[in-house]
Amino acid sequence: MTLTAALQPILDLQLDGASKGFPQDRPAIRLGDVGELGLRLTRGDLDFPVAVLRRSALEHNARWMAEFISRSGASLCPHGKTTMAPQLFHRQLADGAWGITLATPQQVRIAYRFGVRRILLANEAILPGALRWLQSTLDADPDFDFTCLVDSPEAVARLDSVPGRRPIQVLVELGIPGGRTGARGVQAALAVARAVKAATRLQLRGVECYEGIVGSQDPAVDRARIQAWLADLANLAQCCDAEGLFETDCVLLSAGGSAYFDLVVQALGEALAGPHRVVLRSGCYFSHDAGHYQHLLGLLEERLPARLRMEGKLRPALEIWGQVLSRPEPGLAFLGLGKRDAGHDLGLPIPTLWCRPGDPAPPRQAPDSWRITTLYDQHARLELPAGADLQVGDLVGCGISHPCTTFDKWQVLFEVDDDYRVLGAIRTFF
Amino acid sequence: MTLTAALQPILDLQLDGASKGFPQDRPAIRLGDVGELGLRLTRGDLDFPVAVLRRSALEHNARWMAEFISRSGASLCPHGKTTMAPQLFHRQLADGAWGITLATPQQVRIAYRFGVRRILLANEAILPGALRWLQSTLDADPDFDFTCLVDSPEAVARLDSVPGRRPIQVLVELGIPGGRTGARGVQAALAVARAVKAATRLQLRGVECYEGIVGSQDPAVDRARIQAWLADLANLAQCCDAEGLFETDCVLLSAGGSAYFDLVVQALGEALAGPHRVVLRSGCYFSHDAGHYQHLLGLLEERLPARLRMEGKLRPALEIWGQVLSRPEPGLAFLGLGKRDAGHDLGLPIPTLWCRPGDPAPPRQAPDSWRITTLYDQHARLELPAGADLQVGDLVGCGISHPCTTFDKWQVLFEVDDDYRVLGAIRTFF
Repeated sequence: MTLTAALQPILDLQLDGASKGFPQDRPAIRLGDVGELGLRLTRGDLDFPVAVLRRSALEHNARWMAEFISRSGASLCPHGKTTMAPQLFHRQLADGAWGITLATPQQVRIAYRFGVRRILLANEAILPGALRWLQSTLDADPDFDFTCLVDSPEAVARLDSVPGRRPIQVLVELGIPGGRTGARGVQAALAVARAVKAATRLQLRGVECYEGIVGSQDPAVDRARIQAWLADLANLAQCCDAEGLFETDCVLLSAGGSAYFDLVVQALGEALAGPHRVVLRSGCYFSHDAGHYQHLLGLLEERLPARLRMEGKLRPALEIWGQVLSRPEPGLAFLGLGKRDAGHDLGLPIPTLWCRPGDPAPPRQAPDSWRITTLYDQHARLELPAGADLQVGDLVGCGISHPCTTFDKWQVLFEVDDDYRVLGAIRTFF
Repeated sequence: MTLTAALQPILDLQLDGASKGFPQDRPAIRLGDVGELGLRLTRGDLDFPVAVLRRSALEHNARWMAEFISRSGASLCPHGKTTMAPQLFHRQLADGAWGITLATPQQVRIAYRFGVRRILLANEAILPGALRWLQSTLDADPDFDFTCLVDSPEAVARLDSVPGRRPIQVLVELGIPGGRTGARGVQAALAVARAVKAATRLQLRGVECYEGIVGSQDPAVDRARIQAWLADLANLAQCCDAEGLFETDCVLLSAGGSAYFDLVVQALGEALAGPHRVVLRSGCYFSHDAGHYQHLLGLLEERLPARLRMEGKLRPALEIWGQVLSRPEPGLAFLGLGKRDAGHDLGLPIPTLWCRPGDPAPPRQAPDSWRITTLYDQHARLELPAGADLQVGDLVGCGISHPCTTFDKWQVLFEVDDDYRVLGAIRTFF
């Protein structure tokens, strides 16, 4: 099955106004044909609220990351949990991604169903039913390259208890004290690695950590803490190597969420003398954002050494547009856009553009003085100067902070060009 | 079409492990047949995380509200946006609900598609495409009883501009200064009502406010503010009546979210001498919660006068269960349950029960000392005393705060009995 064929069931889905954002007054259409409708967001042709991805920003971000990967010598296994959009997974693979990272067996199933054949489950896998499904899928498909994490002898024992033919490849997860999952310290992680070696059905493929949980108010502190953690991870890999615990042709050294992957390539690139692959897992680079990750990527760009320094910055591709439903006071507008539509865990949506349907001019920049100050379930409170020229019926486009908690509020996003013409529809599977 | 027939397409949907919570190692099955699989959550038969609704609590809450409605003489038009589950809408209608409230035209479309024929859109409707769909649906179906809100002459003009046969019934929304949508003050609202009367295609059916946005730290302040607002709403209704602005046999007076509906029935029950109906819109009574609304309903119960005082309290029906993936430190456990699975805008999930799959004993109460202190996208950090008997693989059930932002994270929830046997599956449409 080719990658393209695997997406066919998505392209063949029927879309209509039951999908948020699809125009209520249009008949149902095949998802793959949405680009032929001639819809234009700024003309009010879609339903609102609506989520859009700007193709030019996606393409720019893909080139940016491909260049970073090329210069750094690392591999990219982007975290698919961010978008859960197989159509985007396939673009990432076509752009050279080594595989797709996922967070749960259910997510693995979605990616597998739609043709992804190299999957890193960056999480512990514990539940017998899920393990049985993973094992039976592995046994039935020699092309399925699957790896998951273990951080305790209990997790090793559980994985090892599932009958099957093909061995399960694992990475030992190294945590930090007070942190999230992951064995605490090199010695504890080494004990887990030895348990993997002693197990009958597991193969140790590498080591892993997720440095993205570090986040104080002080970038220098975060950097030092992450560098120490990565040094421990390199040490763990060396210890496993010295003890002959790895059972693989090429050891995986994996870390790198969306904010510190520069530190990862510098710390792990030379960690082992033998064949190894540094696997980064950024999920957010592709859509990027206008808040949390924009801030963190600004710090990343400042840190980059000359050989890794990139031209241009990642661009926010994901926008949520809402319509002004009410202007009840001179300094207040209410948009039909709420917690159900935009992530708000790492900052509220940021109004960036606005337009008046029927006005052929391109959307205008929203003044910095416009602020969304409260999200209700289905409304946003937009505070603005009393004289602002924003009317009932106008459309406001918002950047978001934290793509992960925005994508999951949409089953369909629309891909648009820079004039907000709809080029196609992207289906998510949360 | 009977109500039951309208749900048939949902019951005929195929479910498999692509739906969060459905066991990965089970073959696909018709949604309506899930109850026949003999699944039991506490045995680890489901996938985790999973969202469940306890049938006994749903039934209790339905009886509670039916009794309140009976005693108060109001009508219930529960807000469907909370669950967006047509199967639950139909139960609410079977329990005597007058109609279903919704927040957006897309939500109206979902409810209409699955057989709901009396719908209150408790929001302004502005977008031409959505208005065209609403009007064409009204014109095609004489049984479709639709009402929406207007809070400005602009909104009136937009509604009035859509060609069609059947008139559109509207309620004038009354807001408060600094509040959300709604005309500011009785005079402004009366001007909107006069614009409705002057419009060619609209009929004024009543007046409306949403008092749930009031929320200070002081219950007495909130109560006084809401009572003043409701008195204004009654005054607005009387003014409209005196001017002959209503064009309906029975005026609707609607307010009442999930926290102050007692104040609404007391303020509006006698507001007009002529035929009128007080329409409450609580969306959260049915599932209830273990946080935000539990607190607010506690205050409501204290306020109730003797004639409305109910036996028993609403019970939390909605729980999210996660599996312990890691116990990396004596005082820490990590559950595979995160921001993607549980609302966290009005409080983090509260661990209430736990069990060990394989142990035939019923789930035990989680000690009060267990606290979820951080939600990551896909993990929960559970802090607990160092000696706590919680192992990798154990299951932890959590109450949630704010059902609206939890339901929207699930396409399928499982209905369970008090022994956590799966009785059926409930599909949402967000």
